[in-house]
Amino acid sequence: MREILTLAFARSVFVEFISTLIFVFIGLGSALKWPSALPSILQISLAFGLAIGTLVQAFGHISGAHINPAVTIAFFVGNQISFLRTFFYVIAQLAGAIAGAGILYGVTPANTRGNLAINSLNNNTTPGQALVVEIILTFQLAVCIFASTDNRRNGNVGSPALSIGLSVAVGHLVGIYFTGCSMNPARSFGPAVIVRRFSSAHWVFWVGPILGACLAALLYFYILVPYCMNMSDRVAIIKGTYDPGQDPKGESPVQPTWTPRH
Amino acid sequence: MREILTLAFARSVFVEFISTLIFVFIGLGSALKWPSALPSILQISLAFGLAIGTLVQAFGHISGAHINPAVTIAFFVGNQISFLRTFFYVIAQLAGAIAGAGILYGVTPANTRGNLAINSLNNNTTPGQALVVEIILTFQLAVCIFASTDNRRNGNVGSPALSIGLSVAVGHLVGIYFTGCSMNPARSFGPAVIVRRFSSAHWVFWVGPILGACLAALLYFYILVPYCMNMSDRVAIIKGTYDPGQDPKGESPVQPTWTPRH
Amino acid sequence: MREILTLAFARSVFVEFISTLIFVFIGLGSALKWPSALPSILQISLAFGLAIGTLVQAFGHISGAHINPAVTIAFFVGNQISFLRTFFYVIAQLAGAIAGAGILYGVTPANTRGNLAINSLNNNTTPGQALVVEIILTFQLAVCIFASTDNRRNGNVGSPALSIGLSVAVGHLVGIYFTGCSMNPARSFGPAVIVRRFSSAHWVFWVGPILGACLAALLYFYILVPYCMNMSDRVAIIKGTYDPGQDPKGESPVQPTWTPRH
Amino acid sequence: MREILTLAFARSVFVEFISTLIFVFIGLGSALKWPSALPSILQISLAFGLAIGTLVQAFGHISGAHINPAVTIAFFVGNQISFLRTFFYVIAQLAGAIAGAGILYGVTPANTRGNLAINSLNNNTTPGQALVVEIILTFQLAVCIFASTDNRRNGNVGSPALSIGLSVAVGHLVGIYFTGCSMNPARSFGPAVIVRRFSSAHWVFWVGPILGACLAALLYFYILVPYCMNMSDRVAIIKGTYDPGQDPKGESPVQPTWTPRH
Repeated sequence: MREILTLAFARSVFVEFISTLIFVFIGLGSALKWPSALPSILQISLAFGLAIGTLVQAFGHISGAHINPAVTIAFFVGNQISFLRTFFYVIAQLAGAIAGAGILYGVTPANTRGNLAINSLNNNTTPGQALVVEIILTFQLAVCIFASTDNRRNGNVGSPALSIGLSVAVGHLVGIYFTGCSMNPARSFGPAVIVRRFSSAHWVFWVGPILGACLAALLYFYILVPYCMNMSDRVAIIKGTYDPGQDPKGESPVQPTWTPRH
Repeated sequence: MREILTLAFARSVFVEFISTLIFVFIGLGSALKWPSALPSILQISLAFGLAIGTLVQAFGHISGAHINPAVTIAFFVGNQISFLRTFFYVIAQLAGAIAGAGILYGVTPANTRGNLAINSLNNNTTPGQALVVEIILTFQLAVCIFASTDNRRNGNVGSPALSIGLSVAVGHLVGIYFTGCSMNPARSFGPAVIVRRFSSAHWVFWVGPILGACLAALLYFYILVPYCMNMSDRVAIIKGTYDPGQDPKGESPVQPTWTPRH
Repeated sequence: MREILTLAFARSVFVEFISTLIFVFIGLGSALKWPSALPSILQISLAFGLAIGTLVQAFGHISGAHINPAVTIAFFVGNQISFLRTFFYVIAQLAGAIAGAGILYGVTPANTRGNLAINSLNNNTTPGQALVVEIILTFQLAVCIFASTDNRRNGNVGSPALSIGLSVAVGHLVGIYFTGCSMNPARSFGPAVIVRRFSSAHWVFWVGPILGACLAALLYFYILVPYCMNMSDRVAIIKGTYDPGQDPKGESPVQPTWTPRH
Repeated sequence: MREILTLAFARSVFVEFISTLIFVFIGLGSALKWPSALPSILQISLAFGLAIGTLVQAFGHISGAHINPAVTIAFFVGNQISFLRTFFYVIAQLAGAIAGAGILYGVTPANTRGNLAINSLNNNTTPGQALVVEIILTFQLAVCIFASTDNRRNGNVGSPALSIGLSVAVGHLVGIYFTGCSMNPARSFGPAVIVRRFSSAHWVFWVGPILGACLAALLYFYILVPYCMNMSDRVAIIKGTYDPGQDPKGESPVQPTWTPRH
């Protein structure tokens, strides 16, 4: 349990909180129904995507900038981070999402708040259809994240932050029509808490993204580009006691694939 | 025939299937005629382009992420990949496109499916005009791909994935008006199979992209930046038995220019 | 006081002047109310963002391309630049903003000038609400800048210029509805001087951005990724006499984090 | 006069022809007035910008991908390329622009051709106002090109191709309202030849871009980041006989700053 006692761990958890706060504030804020000019779907998609792109650039080297419980859980499933890191990240992300939605509620004129852009089933979409859409869209995002931050690739991966951000954007270009586009349980949970409106399909925005991201993790980390590790190292990663040889002992968190190249 | 027996080859073919599935799902999905808000041409163009950008980032280091029979055939014409790789990639891409279009058909409310955004001649365009447009647009995409993944360039090529994706996007900004924009026979074939509607100009979306990409391959690989290889090596590439000296024997597929720099 | 006597210092100050001039010219120019076609919010957001992206690419290696008094002051608060550099940069930025707004006024047909896109409280926003919005939006921009230009990161930071530019763009996608979006006191000051219209909320566009950027500097440079420097080095940075060992003596300005990697 | 006898020189000139052809085809093609859906200003701006971004990525390592007589002339003024290279590039660019506009004319249905998006003074703009706008917009593009391709910067310049392309895009976001946005004499000349319509302000689209780009070259190459070369080397560059020591003799064209890093 050594990992969670480090300062780096506390910083990482705080960064997940603050980055999810900003992400939800900007994303929902771009989708408010201002009477003067309704935002277009492209505009909302780019706001969600570029917010992620900016935050990954800003915080990726500190916490990994997951900003998304589905991504964090998928990294755990892919045996990349410890159980306690997963747990605290998800808590921080949910708290950040509530805080971001709450601040947005506070600063927005009352006639514009609407339902704070919560996710719901649009345009006659059924829960099953929405689930498939959320799975596919989060799947492509998760593989893009895994590949962009895989430190076994020592070549040109371009701009990880922009690629990940634009992957979020392209998901919204399709998903907004079906569900408002979640791809991220925290993004769905935050505004639902603030406006106290949990639709009967709210579960879709937890199950879909988590399932899609975990499928991506299974495919990427075990089939397409598998790690060759022995079982005791794998267990050590889960416990948060894994110590890669080349790192200064005790300082570096276990994040074999996600930490930007140093 | 050794190459196709490797695990890496099977992974590559699977990756071409899954990435073309996602590409067609997102691309067509962004172009559905939702009654609530018709997508703009810019929105559709960016969806196709950013989908390719994301998938090249996610899968480029595994299969090369061609996601396009015209690109695969052009790499073969440019003497970059083997005949069997070409054959299996194209099959996987076509199957992926049908699967992607089929899933989209299943999850979309019936009144929105329309013709699943199949390609056709728009706005009084003649087949000959459409052919020229598809040739030029696929030509620029193919050269961008060849240059972005040419591992003889050891300098700054920026972000190959985003450059290739935005090349697809810019093609759509022009091509949608003429033909809905194919640049990719799989993208045209998938929805045509699902909605069982092959227009009399369907051949344009095979001949145009393949011709444009192959012209680009001839220009790039034989005239502008030619390879100095002897004939037996060239034949070995076609056969899939080429073994570049510096690679671990038998493991690495023959992809001289496309594999992201390691 | 050695630093300000160098040619490099004079070049830097001039570059801040010319880049802020161009930024304000393009940003405001994209937001003019042309009778033929009103610009959309997405269009204006991308114009501001891509202008910053271009100018950081063009001038980042010379002056750091702050182009924003809030960013310059935050770098000072983060103990990255000297007091005199801060002072002259801010003066140059304000002068550049006035010049850019003035030139735009001159070249724009009279019926289109309007109020030159000055910032003001839109859509029933109160000054307190606007202040919070400006703080959060400038906070995310500033952290993105600090992280993108932190030369202690020796890995893949993608494209600093584009990430910073798109961070400006995403801020506008939210902020335009509230305040027209400042995030930059110079951008607010320039057109206000030219059209001689300082609204009673003009202070918001100074206090908000500067507060947001300085909060980001305190968080980034002292808590998340702190420097280990002794007090005399810190004082030397403020005085402009700090001389990092590896640099040729007397030539290089003190910009520990911002100068693009050489 | 040795340089122009090399195969590399012939390839470069051909690449300038083909890339300007494609640029003009895509740029003008995105701005046609289709009755079904008029393109928005953002859409046209991104088409011009992403076309440049794609072509610089595709051809930058071969010819430098100037695609613009103003840029070529500015590189000459900045003492970066020889006189004969300048001369043949400009001829190739103008020929390419005519060919691109001509092909577009041929493939476009007659009722959509309009004036092939030629540049002219819009919205009551005077020639003097248009000239200032073209100077400023081309200035920012040229500095972005010089900085993105300056091989004396050995650090992170992100993606040169995308930065240059987005610089073109942001220029259009402002310039389209004034003049349709040239920033490039070839882009203005090509369609004017094809539709045989040279407005009385056509000179603006030559003088403005060339003046803006040359001002940028004087600033960048002589004041901000000057070269330390003796006069005989400078003359040798103009003559095309300059032979940088580290290059294989006689093969490499003289392009000190523009060739992508190898």
